[in-house]
Amino acid sequence: MIKVGVIGAGGYAGVNLISLLLSHPETKLVWVMSEEAHKGRKMSELFPHLTSICEMPCKTLDEIEKCAKEVDVVFLALPHGIALNYVPQILKSGAKVVDLGADYRFSDEKVFEKWYQVEHKDKGAVAEAVFGLPELYKKDIKKARLIGNPGCYPTATILGTAPLVKEGLIDPASIIVDAKSGVSGAGRGVKLITLYCERNEGVMAYAVTNHRHMGEIDFQLGRVAGGNIQTTFVPHLIPQTRGILSTIYAKLKKPAKTADLMKLYENFYRGQPFVRIYPTPSTKNVSFTNYCDIGVAVNEATKTVIVTSAIDNLIKGAAGQAIQNMNLIFGLDETTGLNQIGVFP
Amino acid sequence: MIKVGVIGAGGYAGVNLISLLLSHPETKLVWVMSEEAHKGRKMSELFPHLTSICEMPCKTLDEIEKCAKEVDVVFLALPHGIALNYVPQILKSGAKVVDLGADYRFSDEKVFEKWYQVEHKDKGAVAEAVFGLPELYKKDIKKARLIGNPGCYPTATILGTAPLVKEGLIDPASIIVDAKSGVSGAGRGVKLITLYCERNEGVMAYAVTNHRHMGEIDFQLGRVAGGNIQTTFVPHLIPQTRGILSTIYAKLKKPAKTADLMKLYENFYRGQPFVRIYPTPSTKNVSFTNYCDIGVAVNEATKTVIVTSAIDNLIKGAAGQAIQNMNLIFGLDETTGLNQIGVFP
Amino acid sequence: MIKVGVIGAGGYAGVNLISLLLSHPETKLVWVMSEEAHKGRKMSELFPHLTSICEMPCKTLDEIEKCAKEVDVVFLALPHGIALNYVPQILKSGAKVVDLGADYRFSDEKVFEKWYQVEHKDKGAVAEAVFGLPELYKKDIKKARLIGNPGCYPTATILGTAPLVKEGLIDPASIIVDAKSGVSGAGRGVKLITLYCERNEGVMAYAVTNHRHMGEIDFQLGRVAGGNIQTTFVPHLIPQTRGILSTIYAKLKKPAKTADLMKLYENFYRGQPFVRIYPTPSTKNVSFTNYCDIGVAVNEATKTVIVTSAIDNLIKGAAGQAIQNMNLIFGLDETTGLNQIGVFP
Amino acid sequence: MIKVGVIGAGGYAGVNLISLLLSHPETKLVWVMSEEAHKGRKMSELFPHLTSICEMPCKTLDEIEKCAKEVDVVFLALPHGIALNYVPQILKSGAKVVDLGADYRFSDEKVFEKWYQVEHKDKGAVAEAVFGLPELYKKDIKKARLIGNPGCYPTATILGTAPLVKEGLIDPASIIVDAKSGVSGAGRGVKLITLYCERNEGVMAYAVTNHRHMGEIDFQLGRVAGGNIQTTFVPHLIPQTRGILSTIYAKLKKPAKTADLMKLYENFYRGQPFVRIYPTPSTKNVSFTNYCDIGVAVNEATKTVIVTSAIDNLIKGAAGQAIQNMNLIFGLDETTGLNQIGVFP
Repeated sequence: MIKVGVIGAGGYAGVNLISLLLSHPETKLVWVMSEEAHKGRKMSELFPHLTSICEMPCKTLDEIEKCAKEVDVVFLALPHGIALNYVPQILKSGAKVVDLGADYRFSDEKVFEKWYQVEHKDKGAVAEAVFGLPELYKKDIKKARLIGNPGCYPTATILGTAPLVKEGLIDPASIIVDAKSGVSGAGRGVKLITLYCERNEGVMAYAVTNHRHMGEIDFQLGRVAGGNIQTTFVPHLIPQTRGILSTIYAKLKKPAKTADLMKLYENFYRGQPFVRIYPTPSTKNVSFTNYCDIGVAVNEATKTVIVTSAIDNLIKGAAGQAIQNMNLIFGLDETTGLNQIGVFP
Repeated sequence: MIKVGVIGAGGYAGVNLISLLLSHPETKLVWVMSEEAHKGRKMSELFPHLTSICEMPCKTLDEIEKCAKEVDVVFLALPHGIALNYVPQILKSGAKVVDLGADYRFSDEKVFEKWYQVEHKDKGAVAEAVFGLPELYKKDIKKARLIGNPGCYPTATILGTAPLVKEGLIDPASIIVDAKSGVSGAGRGVKLITLYCERNEGVMAYAVTNHRHMGEIDFQLGRVAGGNIQTTFVPHLIPQTRGILSTIYAKLKKPAKTADLMKLYENFYRGQPFVRIYPTPSTKNVSFTNYCDIGVAVNEATKTVIVTSAIDNLIKGAAGQAIQNMNLIFGLDETTGLNQIGVFP
Repeated sequence: MIKVGVIGAGGYAGVNLISLLLSHPETKLVWVMSEEAHKGRKMSELFPHLTSICEMPCKTLDEIEKCAKEVDVVFLALPHGIALNYVPQILKSGAKVVDLGADYRFSDEKVFEKWYQVEHKDKGAVAEAVFGLPELYKKDIKKARLIGNPGCYPTATILGTAPLVKEGLIDPASIIVDAKSGVSGAGRGVKLITLYCERNEGVMAYAVTNHRHMGEIDFQLGRVAGGNIQTTFVPHLIPQTRGILSTIYAKLKKPAKTADLMKLYENFYRGQPFVRIYPTPSTKNVSFTNYCDIGVAVNEATKTVIVTSAIDNLIKGAAGQAIQNMNLIFGLDETTGLNQIGVFP
Repeated sequence: MIKVGVIGAGGYAGVNLISLLLSHPETKLVWVMSEEAHKGRKMSELFPHLTSICEMPCKTLDEIEKCAKEVDVVFLALPHGIALNYVPQILKSGAKVVDLGADYRFSDEKVFEKWYQVEHKDKGAVAEAVFGLPELYKKDIKKARLIGNPGCYPTATILGTAPLVKEGLIDPASIIVDAKSGVSGAGRGVKLITLYCERNEGVMAYAVTNHRHMGEIDFQLGRVAGGNIQTTFVPHLIPQTRGILSTIYAKLKKPAKTADLMKLYENFYRGQPFVRIYPTPSTKNVSFTNYCDIGVAVNEATKTVIVTSAIDNLIKGAAGQAIQNMNLIFGLDETTGLNQIGVFP
């Protein structure tokens, strides 16, 4: 059994991690940590749906040194700029790290610093960290001890765009990403913008020209392309709890048919257990699962390819992908503990 | 492996059955049946979230004779009055039956006929059928070959009321059940009342004095009480997909404290893996699980006990409970394949 | 033109007041006040839907003395226990007052103090204040200079119950009120419980035995009955923005038919422009209007009358009713500025 | 008073027309028509929120000849290809016509026939009909007797794009329109795709390369540009009842700043009472109003302009705009009966 600790247990990503880990056949949850205000409170108090399932009390980060030694892997689900204060210590204790925040997603810390406007205090580790998108970097992930788990928007967007970029089928300057996210992406912190009454019946764009995930998408798509990529990325909030749909537009260099591109995507993702290709996926079809469902179509009149890519932002976009990465690091089948079948409706 | 067939695979209860059965470690899904219009169509066509998971084509009821022989148990999820035409034949083939409809929920077919206004054509089997509420009738279920799986409202309501009725703590003439249901309870058939735009932002009562589940609640609570029970049952539609919350009110014969009744409920359901007792449960806490969460409180000024009982109408109120019953019939632990941990939010 | 000031402009009740007042043909909005943090900010900043409609900057309560003199009536939409510090001063300036909070809803300040657990510092005015439910107290309202505007739950519940209580048709000890409210009832303050992700797909009861509106309901129904009334009142949160549905249950003293009671209600509310009687109203039918829609039915088997009473909690349950009261005080037709026709869906 | 008849009163656009017309100070609703199944049924039966407000019984189209003579203007809200059978007759009777369907939106019937795949049987009138987008064609509308009222997606999209196209600031081949619509856009007909349970928690694209409104957008933007325009238009369904947000992307021919374009839009729409310019509008801000709220931003790195344009699909996208057109035809101020202030939340 892999011994596991979770930091950030009071948030939505954290609690999804815990739910998945508790039903994972090869892991043992050793401790959970949350913020000061939760110290000593049981998980079932913070989240009553865990009553009788997880009565573990929350520790806090002041115990990290001792706790790190008790586990084989630590998951961190924290706001950016915090994990990097603890990761060196955890690695030193011998535990592996999967960081769900932004701190280790950029192999070049300058790019992190540009988009997040803080100094990166753990520069050394950045180059070592592996970007945890298994469909692209499985080999590296298997050998990693530190994973920068991708953001939710980047996961849906990069998986949706990678085949086109890799094959050089599109004009890279033409990529537009119109992403729609459920409200859980904004976290469990209390804010006016995430109140029920403020979001219900209201779709709107936000951070129209400067969302931080644009930096991650560009940086990582650039690696895939082997060149510079600058997308136009516009996130939107829609009135639902879970799910991201990225609609991706790009100009084709040469004419192509919908059926050809569908085939291209099927080939590109052949053998990847969590990618499914079919027309017009809905976030509803991936809810509570680790799938990324992708559809491709060509508007021949405008020579534009249109990709829709759907994930559950808290599973494939956070907790599920983190466990997929852990599975790979520890030599398990990557689907272990992640074969939940979505329930509908 | 238990070989299984599912009839009614095109509906919400049916597809939930199939999802649960596919991840059940001891069952093998042999065939699925749906209505004529679905003949030959794959499950993944009817429900795209099953893409790559269930590509089985739908059979239709004209093949039931042959098909029944291929399985150990058949689940039927059909409108009332249809299952009873096929159940005798299925039983004759040797397969066990779990009927999710109303046809076998009443050991007295007269009561069925009164509430459903159709003649019961399989009178013989009615007396043999066991009401599939494991928390009350586990022993009988284990020996049964025909289960009348409880309705969704009755499941939440009977579990919420049974301890009070059994212990004789309340005036049986005073029981009022105010039930709130998500829209999925009305099924996948297309109707004006279940359109998104008609239900969103609208809570309303319906079938205020004559909902058929009132007959089932009264009949089954009467059995628990060992006498006649007539409740006032009023169902409401609320704008959510899944979940039922039954709020139950009754006058206490003698004063009691909230804490005493909480204890009573805990004792009554001790050892029942799917009942949890804590204050003010939310349907959100049981979503996608087989739990029934119950809270009890006493308004001392009015000598009224108030119970809130929450289930997922499609799991504990339908598919999950059906599988719990199957588990018991086949000698498995009743939680087999049903230990999904709810994911939040 | 009636000159008007609104205190509490940053909240949901306040902004609804302002919207209604701006389209009211006989009022002129002179100033708006909100909390310190909003000082000098424009209404259209706090509420972008008011862009180009209300660019008035917010004042704060430190200017109340001067401001009170500039208007004919002041509306206060504040948490309980605050209005009573300012009302005496406003009245002294000659302006009328409609208080949407709880401070002036009880002619006996002891009852206020019991339910709200604070001392009432404006005891003198309490006896003078008129409970602003026009369907019951129109005559008094016309002569009032200080109105205690009813709470949202009490409005729906008292209107739904008054005819039965007044006519002595029910056992007063048997009244049960199961109320369902949209999330806007909890206000615009940021709290975990009102986050989109915490409420979506979750119905739950809260304050099961001690919600403050139970005190208001009992006190006011007692006045109607001419005796003591103690109801069992249980509020629930449901996933919608607006609307309250109160389902009211009581035992009939003598058998009655649904049709008789429908007629009774029609007669009781004849001439009241904002009450409509028809079976099973939905909150959707009253959204954005000042209507209270009521349906009555009798479960003859259990001798129980079932009333469902629907309002928009922010209009008839707050801002609309406040304006209805203002209209009456100033000798206008009570529907002036309140004849919005609901838009559907 | 303008005497008015409404055809299609049983649908969502129809009932919104009726609500607005009933509170319009200069119109008198003379009759309403709906489908055969509604014959003789009262509006308040079809839509209980109209109880006591509109008890008018529905007529059917077999009475159109007589009925047309009783009114000054007829609104038709029908599926495409039906209105064109009745419009010639109505015009002959002397009444003006505002058609909310697609039949008269194209001055070239060939384009209609291409996108709608039916022959246009009223070719003569097509050239006479005026496209009813008052912000662009006010002068023509004032003199018209037949209006083709714009579709919902085209209204949001054309208003959002016109200033850029008109000023020649963008590469017309680069226009991408990612539109998000509430479910009411799909009408009141019962379909699987518009069921509550199928849409809740599910965002998805549909008609990705061939939605009919793409034809209308291209045709009408082409007129604005004075040339050929082919956009890439992709509509999405999101889980809300009302509202459309069109997010429009295009490459700038020359660098520009956000502030410059905001100013351009303000100037372009100066004097237009129903267009408001501010950053990142939400559909919530225009709910139940005739506003189109528009925000513009420039991603300087990618030289891409991003416009978000929000309307209430049933008001500015249908009924409200139809009345705005009627106002203009009859010489009224265009805002008459349309100055509803949105209520929030």
